[in-house]
Amino acid sequence: MNKLNIKWVLPLIFLFLAVSSMGAIAQESAANSTTELVSSTDMTQTIKSLTDGQKYDRAIHIMAMLLVGFGFLMVFVRKYGRSAITATFLLVSVSIPTYIMLVNSGLFGVEKVSEIDSLILSEFAAASLLITAGAILGRLKMWQYILLGILFIPAYMFNEHIMLGNGFGLIDSGSFIDVGGSIVIHSFGAIFGIGVAISMTTKKEFGTEIEADFTSDRFSLLGSMILWIFWPSFCAALVLPEEVVHTAINVILALSGATIATYFFTTLLRGKIDAADIANASLAGGVAIGSVCNTASPAEAIIIGLLAGLISTMGFALVQSRLQKGLKLIDTCGVSNLHGIPGLFGGLAALVVIPGINISAQLTGIGLTIVIAIIGGLITGKILSFTGRRNTPYTDEEEFGAEI
Amino acid sequence: MNKLNIKWVLPLIFLFLAVSSMGAIAQESAANSTTELVSSTDMTQTIKSLTDGQKYDRAIHIMAMLLVGFGFLMVFVRKYGRSAITATFLLVSVSIPTYIMLVNSGLFGVEKVSEIDSLILSEFAAASLLITAGAILGRLKMWQYILLGILFIPAYMFNEHIMLGNGFGLIDSGSFIDVGGSIVIHSFGAIFGIGVAISMTTKKEFGTEIEADFTSDRFSLLGSMILWIFWPSFCAALVLPEEVVHTAINVILALSGATIATYFFTTLLRGKIDAADIANASLAGGVAIGSVCNTASPAEAIIIGLLAGLISTMGFALVQSRLQKGLKLIDTCGVSNLHGIPGLFGGLAALVVIPGINISAQLTGIGLTIVIAIIGGLITGKILSFTGRRNTPYTDEEEFGAEI
Amino acid sequence: MNKLNIKWVLPLIFLFLAVSSMGAIAQESAANSTTELVSSTDMTQTIKSLTDGQKYDRAIHIMAMLLVGFGFLMVFVRKYGRSAITATFLLVSVSIPTYIMLVNSGLFGVEKVSEIDSLILSEFAAASLLITAGAILGRLKMWQYILLGILFIPAYMFNEHIMLGNGFGLIDSGSFIDVGGSIVIHSFGAIFGIGVAISMTTKKEFGTEIEADFTSDRFSLLGSMILWIFWPSFCAALVLPEEVVHTAINVILALSGATIATYFFTTLLRGKIDAADIANASLAGGVAIGSVCNTASPAEAIIIGLLAGLISTMGFALVQSRLQKGLKLIDTCGVSNLHGIPGLFGGLAALVVIPGINISAQLTGIGLTIVIAIIGGLITGKILSFTGRRNTPYTDEEEFGAEI
Repeated sequence: MNKLNIKWVLPLIFLFLAVSSMGAIAQESAANSTTELVSSTDMTQTIKSLTDGQKYDRAIHIMAMLLVGFGFLMVFVRKYGRSAITATFLLVSVSIPTYIMLVNSGLFGVEKVSEIDSLILSEFAAASLLITAGAILGRLKMWQYILLGILFIPAYMFNEHIMLGNGFGLIDSGSFIDVGGSIVIHSFGAIFGIGVAISMTTKKEFGTEIEADFTSDRFSLLGSMILWIFWPSFCAALVLPEEVVHTAINVILALSGATIATYFFTTLLRGKIDAADIANASLAGGVAIGSVCNTASPAEAIIIGLLAGLISTMGFALVQSRLQKGLKLIDTCGVSNLHGIPGLFGGLAALVVIPGINISAQLTGIGLTIVIAIIGGLITGKILSFTGRRNTPYTDEEEFGAEI
Repeated sequence: MNKLNIKWVLPLIFLFLAVSSMGAIAQESAANSTTELVSSTDMTQTIKSLTDGQKYDRAIHIMAMLLVGFGFLMVFVRKYGRSAITATFLLVSVSIPTYIMLVNSGLFGVEKVSEIDSLILSEFAAASLLITAGAILGRLKMWQYILLGILFIPAYMFNEHIMLGNGFGLIDSGSFIDVGGSIVIHSFGAIFGIGVAISMTTKKEFGTEIEADFTSDRFSLLGSMILWIFWPSFCAALVLPEEVVHTAINVILALSGATIATYFFTTLLRGKIDAADIANASLAGGVAIGSVCNTASPAEAIIIGLLAGLISTMGFALVQSRLQKGLKLIDTCGVSNLHGIPGLFGGLAALVVIPGINISAQLTGIGLTIVIAIIGGLITGKILSFTGRRNTPYTDEEEFGAEI
Repeated sequence: MNKLNIKWVLPLIFLFLAVSSMGAIAQESAANSTTELVSSTDMTQTIKSLTDGQKYDRAIHIMAMLLVGFGFLMVFVRKYGRSAITATFLLVSVSIPTYIMLVNSGLFGVEKVSEIDSLILSEFAAASLLITAGAILGRLKMWQYILLGILFIPAYMFNEHIMLGNGFGLIDSGSFIDVGGSIVIHSFGAIFGIGVAISMTTKKEFGTEIEADFTSDRFSLLGSMILWIFWPSFCAALVLPEEVVHTAINVILALSGATIATYFFTTLLRGKIDAADIANASLAGGVAIGSVCNTASPAEAIIIGLLAGLISTMGFALVQSRLQKGLKLIDTCGVSNLHGIPGLFGGLAALVVIPGINISAQLTGIGLTIVIAIIGGLITGKILSFTGRRNTPYTDEEEFGAEI
C-alpha cells in the first residue's frame, strides 16, 4: 500500500542523513574548539557569572520542589487534587514576587542582596509558606491562599531578619546556625500553620476530619521523590562553592537514613507499611540536617537522618490521629510531624555537632522563631477567618465544579 | 523468628558502618582539596567548557519540558493518553537529529554554530514542532507525526534563518528581537499548526470535537508544572552568562503574573475555576516574556505576565469553543490561545519595552513569520492528508489496542 | 459582597507593588555588578569548585533517574505500585551510603576518589542494583530488598575494581572501555538479577506469571521519560569537562534512534504499538551508547541507537513471554531485554567504533563481568531464598494493607 511505502522509507532517509552528516559535525567540532574564545575579557566577572549560574541551577531545582514536590505530596487529600495543585501554583506565584519586591524595598532593614540570592531566598520563603498551607489544606478557598501568602511573607521576613540579619540587634550575624533552614524555614512554616489552624478552629466547626484519598498514593510518592531528589540543592543553595558537594552528600546520607528508619518504624508501629509515612517521614532527614548540612560529618548526617525518620514516623503513626481527634487540632498534611518537630530537632542538633557554637544565640533563635511563628499564625488565622470559613472541609467541587 | 532477627540486625550493621567510616571520609576530604588540581592548564579553555556546561544544564532542563512538559500537558485528550505521550517521544526523537543534521549541512546558509548551541537550537525547533502537533493532536496516526516532524523542521529553519541569520538579506542580524522565541518558536509553531489543521479539515469530516478526559487533570497539571519550572532555562538558554539570572527572574515574575491573572479571570469568565485554564494559561507569561526576557525590568515582566494570562484565559474561556463549533476549526490543545496570541503579544511588547528598537525590523519579522508559518502549515497539511486521514479523531485503541 | 471586595483589591495591590519596586531592583542590579567580587582569591581552587559543581548537577540528574525514573518505570506491575516505589526508595537509600562507606574504607583496594566522584560512583552502583531488582520485582518482601542491596554492592564493587581499577592485575587501567557503563552497570545488573532469579526459582513455585497493570501506563511512560531526559548526564557524569557536550549529544542521538526503531519494530512485530515497548526499548539506545558515549561520532551514535532499539524491541516482543513460559525464568521488568543484551551490544560496539582499542582487554572485561555477575547473583539468590520466599508474587496488600 501507498501508506506503508512512505512509512518504511522514512527510517532509510533518516539513516542516510545521519551518515552523510557525520563528517560535517566532526569538522565543526574541531573548528569550534580553536576559534571560539571566552566572550568576557574580565576573568573575574566570568567566574562570578559561572558561580551565579550554578546557584541558578540550584534555584531551578528548588522550584521543582516547590511546585511538583509540595504540590503532589499534597494531592492525597480526598477529592481535593485539583485544588491542592492550583493552591500550590498560586502560593508560589504570590510569594516569590512579593518577597523579591519587599527585599528590594529595604523595608525590613534587610541589606541588599544579589539578584540570584534574592531569588533563592524568595524560594525559601515560598517553601515555608507551602508548609504553612499544608497545615490547613482544604480549609481555605483559593483566593484565601493568596491572602495567606501576602500575610505570611512579611512575618517570615521579619523572623528571617532577626535570625540572620541581626535585626533589632537580638542575635549577632552568623551566630545562629541554620544554613539549610531547619528552623527558619521548616519549623517556622509548620508552627505558623498550627497557629493559623488554632485561630481558625472552633471545636464544633472543625470536627470533620479530612479524609485521605488512597488512590492518589502514587502521585504523593512522586511529589515525595521530587523533594528527596532536589533536597541537596535546597540545603546547598547558598553555601560557598567549595562546600556544595560535601553539603549535598550529607543531605543524601540524612535522607537515606530517614528513609530506612521510616520503613522500620512504620512497620514496627503500625504492623504494616504505610505509604503516607514513606512519602512524608523519609523527608524528615532533609528537614533535620538543614542546620548543620555543611558542617556535619557523613556519620553524623546519617545518624541525624535515622533519628529524624524515627521522630517523624512516631509523629505520623502515634500522634497525628490523636491530635485531630483529641485536641480537635487541624494539621491536614501533618506538617508538625514532618517539618515542625524534625526542624526543631535539627536546630538543636547543631548544639551537639558544631564545636564552639554560640549556645545562647542558637537557643534564643529557636525560641524567638517559635514565638514569632505562633503569634504570626494566630493573627493570620484570625484575619483569614474574618474573610469567610466553613464548618466542613472544601472539596474540588466547591470551586472547580464536578469531575465529568 | 529467624527472619525478624535478620531484619533488625540490618540497621545496626548500617549504623556501625556509618560511624566507623566517619574518619575515613573526613580524611579523604581534606587530602582531596590539596592534591587534586585542575586538569587543563589552559584556563580559557576550562572556562569555555564550564560555560558550555552551564548551557548543557539548561539544555537538559529544556528536554524535561519537551518530553514530560509537553507530553503530559497533552494527555487530557480522552482515551488518547498513550498516543499523546508516544507522539511526543517520536516528535522529539525525529526533530532533534534532523535539526542537528541540517544545521551542520549548511543547507540553509546558517553559519556554523557550536555543538551545544546546535543542541539547544534543535530543542527550540522541537518545542515549536510540539506546539504545531498540539493543534492537530488526535488527528494523525503515529507515523504521520514522524512525517510532520520531517516536513516541519526545514520550514522552521527557513524562518529562523530569515529572522535571526539575515537570510536573503531581509532582516539585519540582531535587529529582530526574540531571545526567548515568542515569535519564532511559539507563534510560528501555533500558526503552522493552524495551517495544517485548516488544510486537513473539511467541515464535514472534522465535525467531531475532541473530548477532554477530566480524570487526567493531575497529569496535565504535572506537565504544566514541569513547563513552568524549567521555562527560565528555556528563555535563558542562549543569553550571555551574566544575563542568565536577570532573565530567569523576569521569566519567573512573568509566569507568576500569568498564574495569578489566570486564576482571577477563569473565575470571572467561567464562574468557576477551570483546571485546564490553570494548566495552560498560567504558562502564557512564559510565552509572552520570550522576546524581551533579558531586557525587561522586573515590573515590566510582571505586567507582561499579567496581561498574557488575561489574554490567554480569555482565549480559552471565550474563543476556544466557538472556534471549534463556529468555524469548524481544529485546535485540539488550544495552542493559538497559549502560544499563538500570547507569542504575538510578546513580540509586539518589545516595541514598548526596548528603547530604540528597530520597529520596522520587528514588525517585518512578525509579519513574515506569520506568512511563512501559515503557508508552511497549509502545504504540510495537504501532504499529510494525502497520506491518509479519517473523519473522526483517533483514540488509543486505533494503534495501541484496548486497555486490558 | 465583602469577600469579593478583598478578592479584587489583591491584584491591584500586587500591581502597585510591582511597579513601585521597579526602580529599586534595577538600581540594585547595577550596584551588584560592580561591588561584589569572587570570594576565593585562589582561581584554581574556584575553578575546581565550579567543575565539581557541574558534576554535582549531573549527580542530581542521576538521582532523578534512580528514584522517579526507575521507580515509576516499575509501577506497571499489577497491584504492586506502592511496593515498587517503596522498594526503589529503600534500594537507593541502602546502596548509596553503603557504597560511599566501602569506597572510603579502602576494602576493595579501590584508590581514594574525590567526594563528588564517590557520590556519582555510588549512584552508578544504585542504578545497577535497581536493574537487578527489576528482574525479580514482586518476588521479595520489602526488607529483602534491603538485604539484596547490602549483598549486591560488594559484588558490584568487586567487579568494578577488576574492570576499572586494575584489580588483581587482570585488566590494565584504562584499557577496558566503558565510560557510560554499558557493561559494568547495565549488563552486570541485568545478569546479576537473572542469577538471583534462577537461584530463587523452582519451576513449581514460580509458575504464576506477574501480570501487568495497563492502567499504570502513563506512570511507566513518565518514568521512562525521566530516564530519557537525564540519560546524557548519566553517561557524561565523569567525562572531562570538554567532553560533556559531545557526549550528551551522542546520547540524545542514540536515544532518538532507539525510540524511532522501537516504534517501527513494535508495530512490525506485534501488529500494534505496545506502550511498554515504547517505555522500555526506547531507552536501549542509552544503554548501548554507554561504552563509547564520549568517542563515537554522531552518525555512529544514531546507528548504535537504532540497532539497540531493534534488539531490545525484539527481546520484549519475541523473547520475553517465551522466557517466562518456556524456561519458567523470571524477569519481571524484562531487564535482560533492556539492559542485559543492549549493554553487551554496547560493550562490543566499542570494538568497531574505537580505533586501536585493546580487543583482548575489552573481551576479557565483558567475559569476566558476565561470570562475576552470574555467580554473584546465584549466591545472592540462594541467601535471599533462605530468608523466606513464596510460590506466588506479592502484591501491595501483603505489606501495605488493602487500598481503601
